[in-house]
Parts: sequence; structure tokens; C-alpha cells
Amino acid sequence: MHMINAYDPANAGELGDADRELLRRRERLLGPAYRLFYARPLHLVRGDGVWLYDADGVAYLDVYNNVASLGHCHPRVVEAIARQAALLNTHTRYLHETVLALAERLLATMPAALGHVMFTCTGSEANDLALRIARAATGGTGVIVTKLAYHGVTSAVAEFSPSLGDGVATGRDVRLVPAPDGYRGDPAVGPAFARGVMAALEEFRAAGIRPAMLILDSIFSSDGVHADPPGFLQEAIDAVRAAGALYVADEVQAGFGRTGAAMWGFLRHGVQPDMVSMGKPMGNGHPVAGLALRPELVRDFGARARYFNTFGGNPVSAAAAMAVLDALEAEGIQDRAAAVGAYLVAGLRRLAAAHEAIGDVRGAGLFIGVDLVTDRQSRAPDRDLATRVVNGLRERRVLISASGPGGNVVKIRPPLAFTRDNADLFLATLADTLTACQA
Amino acid sequence: MHMINAYDPANAGELGDADRELLRRRERLLGPAYRLFYARPLHLVRGDGVWLYDADGVAYLDVYNNVASLGHCHPRVVEAIARQAALLNTHTRYLHETVLALAERLLATMPAALGHVMFTCTGSEANDLALRIARAATGGTGVIVTKLAYHGVTSAVAEFSPSLGDGVATGRDVRLVPAPDGYRGDPAVGPAFARGVMAALEEFRAAGIRPAMLILDSIFSSDGVHADPPGFLQEAIDAVRAAGALYVADEVQAGFGRTGAAMWGFLRHGVQPDMVSMGKPMGNGHPVAGLALRPELVRDFGARARYFNTFGGNPVSAAAAMAVLDALEAEGIQDRAAAVGAYLVAGLRRLAAAHEAIGDVRGAGLFIGVDLVTDRQSRAPDRDLATRVVNGLRERRVLISASGPGGNVVKIRPPLAFTRDNADLFLATLADTLTACQA
Repeated sequence: MHMINAYDPANAGELGDADRELLRRRERLLGPAYRLFYARPLHLVRGDGVWLYDADGVAYLDVYNNVASLGHCHPRVVEAIARQAALLNTHTRYLHETVLALAERLLATMPAALGHVMFTCTGSEANDLALRIARAATGGTGVIVTKLAYHGVTSAVAEFSPSLGDGVATGRDVRLVPAPDGYRGDPAVGPAFARGVMAALEEFRAAGIRPAMLILDSIFSSDGVHADPPGFLQEAIDAVRAAGALYVADEVQAGFGRTGAAMWGFLRHGVQPDMVSMGKPMGNGHPVAGLALRPELVRDFGARARYFNTFGGNPVSAAAAMAVLDALEAEGIQDRAAAVGAYLVAGLRRLAAAHEAIGDVRGAGLFIGVDLVTDRQSRAPDRDLATRVVNGLRERRVLISASGPGGNVVKIRPPLAFTRDNADLFLATLADTLTACQA
Repeated sequence: MHMINAYDPANAGELGDADRELLRRRERLLGPAYRLFYARPLHLVRGDGVWLYDADGVAYLDVYNNVASLGHCHPRVVEAIARQAALLNTHTRYLHETVLALAERLLATMPAALGHVMFTCTGSEANDLALRIARAATGGTGVIVTKLAYHGVTSAVAEFSPSLGDGVATGRDVRLVPAPDGYRGDPAVGPAFARGVMAALEEFRAAGIRPAMLILDSIFSSDGVHADPPGFLQEAIDAVRAAGALYVADEVQAGFGRTGAAMWGFLRHGVQPDMVSMGKPMGNGHPVAGLALRPELVRDFGARARYFNTFGGNPVSAAAAMAVLDALEAEGIQDRAAAVGAYLVAGLRRLAAAHEAIGDVRGAGLFIGVDLVTDRQSRAPDRDLATRVVNGLRERRVLISASGPGGNVVKIRPPLAFTRDNADLFLATLADTLTACQA
């Protein structure tokens, strides 16, 4: 499957000389597995809050990047990294206070049953570790994910990340289930989703495969952003538990206040995961990630095997993550995500009144999908329009992307420092772009 | 297998109250898969050059940590991280200069056939990516490693990291070969090593498994440190190539000037890898790693699949790695590793004249193994003495560990900022410790 919003090298002619040269160097040095965004890729040199600046000093409103979730170059995080990097950076085979304070603080935001945190550097590593532990704890091997899930790029995790496309084979012990979709699928989202999961469990039984885990991105980002109704996950999770397998909440996308209603996407659904993986916004860009889990799950694994991740949970990474938690609290980031998110949704719904192409507006907090359709009757995805809108916004200095099986869901996922003023600018620019793209 | 130099919780009584409390918190929060070093774990709070300081302000000479390879908190790296973190930290889906300059600079240190670098956050991820690419490029699945190899902790890489112990199963398509060992094995190291590899290839043939790669730590750290004679790898590599598989040099331990003779461990052997993985010292503690490779290998993979690592190759990680290369050059680190390493080896050989327990001193540059034996005739590994020496040194404020199948090889692997004065202090303390441990 072609990556949504990927640069097509056939368009190099549209670039300036300096960017074309950078692009040639990049192809030569990094090779063909790397992809750039946009028909005209961006050469960014500076970031500040919700703004990114290119090499010519042009400012872009960032409505896409969820890693620098507090805003680009947040001073509190930058300062914490600089301070700790100058003081000590070792690893978890010596005692250190900060990694423990960080684990305590993360666990305090989660259900009491989750008692340990293990630290990695990336969300991929966190989900890979979840797999190792789930297999050890259940004795099973089977993994259930949604049809267009993305969970990471290690060998094992890529096998259950079907959004990487047909070029990356799904594992033999992996089953795909339809994503929850109240817009195009059965409006009884919970029962429909559970039926898919139960069918996968039945396939496992028939194939003699013991299931190990159901792992779900709590906002279903690559599946096209599906958040509602809150609580719809429970029935599927019950079925998975009854089959002896675990439920892993992948919070790499939905975590750290993004959905507004709660610190974690799974909390918004009121469900109890066996493990919770976290990453991207955890260090506001610094490579830090982790896995919270029920202690029982790692008891045998830990007695038999050690886990050491050289950089995972080091003092600098821990300081960066602590600064993120401090800023989240001090700046009321989650409430802000809720308020600005609701404001943005209201604005998008007003926009929908003027634009038939907007079939659906959905999401939670500052993770919003705008589903573009050829017509509201058929609800047929308009991938072509989404591509034009994404690139039209880029030309108008607003950064965004798209997702979903139809490549037609405009994905709105700005830094959480996003304000109402930013939302107004975005809405006005989107209105212009939609008008221009449909002219 | 019990981890060498792991803390045994049964000894908690020997700790002060504050450390015991920290330890209890740690067990509660991080769980049982984490291991600490030493009979009496260390609580470190500050690092500077080759020195680490505990919470009471006691200084320890670091003769172990190869991650902070330029010395702890090297100002050039700290400054580069702080500067770039305040300026921009995005990802490789936008154009950015530093990641390209870094790739160029890394490739300039390698054979011309290696044309691309792909960036990850950890050595585990780099070796995991090497596996994905080797499998795609060769159509094979088989992996050959040495008996006590360590290559990382992802699901796939742990399957070919037998040093993780019996609790972590070796993959079905993985074959272990005897490590090169001129001390206890056949003194014709190259032919003996090649015979092991050819036997593994023959097993693959018999089992109908196509081989994908031979991956070797260029200094065989966890196998007990085996460096000589330079060039001995060639025969095994030829056999692997003849069977259609690739040779991957794992430079996570030996790279970045550590062996003194060359920037990379494989260059010291004069061999040509198909891929080179790098990690640990690459950012002097900042989480950055990568994989250099022959462009042909990723051509099909890159056309079919994309590779994106959210934090991999980001501007801050790239700036950290560039600062490391700058410092390596400006401070003549590789030559220093060669000179101080030779000085240390000479001192250790003098020490051997007075201590029968030192059976062998070997290594390259500042990666040295001191093989402790019960007697020189039998060459039987003295694990017990090594444990006492490692902990005796810790009590004398010198940090070190041990490795090898017998757990008896004292592993000397200090920051490369190590001086002759540091070496003298280490040698004197080791002499005292050996005497005390054998009294």
C-alpha cells in the first residue's frame, strides 16, 4: 500500500535548487526505505510552540506533530535534558532516583493493578516487549490487531502492523479484525467490534493457535480515528480474557492527555488493560518510551530472563519524561486538549454545513478525524480530495496529514499547546483550501 | 544462566538505609526483570570524564562504561544536545541537514561498498533492522551467531542473543558456533572459527533452512573478549557468502575507535561487511544508533516497504552523534585508545608475572580481557575469583565487570578519555585486589 501523503520523487521538478540537492543527498545516503511528507517536501530548521519554520524563515502552523506534544522545544523539557545531560547519564544497572520517581508518577495515573513500568527508547520496543511478556505469561502466540493497525517496526511488531502495507507480511499467528467504525460500519460499535475479535479467537482455536494478546491503539489512528462511543472496547476485551489472552493498550498515540477526557485513551473507555505501552510524546521528542504492566505478568519472565535496555530509563531520558509530566500538570494540558478539541470539532461541524465533502467529524480531545467523501449518501472515501487538501494546506502553511483505509481522513493532531486562535486560523485556512480544492 | 556480576537481593542487609529503600522502591516499581550490578549496588548521581560519583560524593574510577565513551558528560556533546533541543526536534519525514551530514561522515569511515545509513534509537533496533533486511535480500531465514553472543533485546534479536541465558529460547532458525578462542581453543583461530561456521551452514542445508546472515560482535565481548589474530574472520565470511548469506558486523561494542587500531572493529580485521550496526557510544549516552549497509540490499525492501523510526535520526540525536565524531577527531581518541590500551596491556602482563591467577591478557585498544584461571596448566576459569575481584575493585572505588562462558574474564572497557595516570591507578588497585582476594 502506498503511504498516505508520501512525497513522489517524480515531482522533484517542483522543488527549489537547494531542496532538490538536499533530496538527492538524502536518497543517496539514507536509501529507498525512507519517505518524505508532501508533494513538495519541507525543509524545517526551527520549531517553537505550535510553529515550525523552514530554511527561508517561513512559519508553518503545526496541526500534525503529536511527538512535540507540549509544543516544539518546550523550555521546561529542553532545560531538564540540558541539566541532566551535564550531570550524569548512565543506565539502570546502577541505582538512580529519577527513573523511580518517573515510574511512580506514571503508575499514579493508571489503574492500581498496573504496578510496574519497564523502560525502552521507542514505542516499537515497548510493543515488542509487550509481545515477549504476553507470550511468556499466556503460553500463547496469537496476536489480534485491527485491519490497518500500526504498532511499530521491529521484526516482530512489523508482523502485526498491517498499515505498513502488503510489502510487509503479516505474521502466521496474527489475525486482523475490522476496526470499530460507527460511520461506515455497524452503528452498534461495541458488539460489532467484539464479533470481529471473537471470530479471530475462533480462527485461532481452529488453527490450534493459543492467543497471547489483543493490542489496540486507543484512538485507532491509522484505521482512520475512531473514538466513540466511550466504553465500546469492553465486550471485545472480555472475550479475549475469556480465551486466556491479554489486552494491551497502545497509548503511543492517545496517551499523555491527548484525548482530553483522560490522561490515557483506555481510561476514556473505562477499561482495564493488562499492559500499557507509551512512547512518542513521553519525552516531547527525546527518545523515551515504556511499558506499564500487571506485576504478575512479568514474575516468571523476570525470574527466567533479564531485561536491559542500554538507554532505556537512563537519567536524561527519565528527566525529560519527568519534565513532560510537570508541564502537563502545570499548564493544564489535558483540560486544554479537551476545551480546544471541542472548540475545533464545533468549528469543523460548522464547516461541514458548507462543505458536502465533509462526511464525518470525529475524535476525542485534540485527535480529530475529518472524513472526506465523494458524497454523503454513499459515504465513499475521497482519497483524491484528501490528498489535495493536505497538500493545499501545506502550500497555505498549515501542516497536516491523512489516514484510514481510504486515505481520506484528514488527521488533526496538533501539539497540545494549540490555542483557540490557532484553531481559528486552521479552520479559516481549511475552509479556503476546501473551497479551492473543489473549485 | 545467572548474569555475571548481578546483585543478589539476598544481600540487601549489607546496604545503608537510603540505598535499601531505593532498592525496595526499584523492585516494586520496575519489577523482577531488572538487574543491578555488584554485591553492593551503586547509587550514582554525577559523572565527569572517567569519574562517577555516588550519593555520598565518593568518586569511582570508571573502567567499565563504554557508552559514555568520550567520558561522562562530555561538554561538546552536552552542548550540542542542549543547542539542538532548543532549536528543533522533528523527524526524518521532513528534510534536515544534520542527519545527512552525519550519514556522510559515518560512511566516510567505512569501505566504499557501504552506501546508506538507516537510523534507529538502539543497537537492538539496528540489529533487528539488519535481520529484516538480510531476510528480504537473501530470501533466507537462518542466523549464525557465536555461542554466547549478545546482539539485543527485541523479540527477534533476543532469539539470537544466547548470552541472555537459558530462559530466553534460541530461535528455530538460529545456529550457535564456537567463539574464536586462541587461548582455550585451537590456536589456528581463523580455520577453527570457519569450521564452526561451515558446520552451521551444513546444518542449515540438512534442515532445509536458507541462511540469511552471520552476525558477529567484532570484539566478541560477551564470549570473553577475542581480538586476535587480526584478519581471522575472513575464512568464515567467505563460507557464509558462498552459501548466499550476508555478514553483519555488530560494532555496538567495538566501534567508534574503541579498538585503537581502527575506527571500526571489522576494519582491524580487514574484512568487508554487508551491513554494520552501531549503537552505544554513538551519542555518548544519548539514544542514537544506526545501520550502514550496501545499497543493493535495501533496494527491494525499500521499494516494497517503508522504514520510519519516529525518533531515529532526529535533529537532536543527529547533533549528538555529530558532536561525538567531532570530539573523536579533535581529541585523537582512537590513537589514545591505542596508546593507553597498549600501556595497560603491558602493565597487566607485568602484573601477570606476580599473579599466577592471570592466565591470559588479550584484547585491542581499550577493550581488554584478563582471563582468571585456577591454574595456568589446566586454564580452568576461576569464576569465583573474578567475582571477588570485580566486587573487591568496587569496594576500592574502581568499576569493572566480567564476561565469558566461565564468567572469569575481567572486562576492561573504560571511557576512551582514560589516561596513563588512570591506567596506573587501575593497575595498582587491581594488584592490591588480586593480592587481597587470594590471601
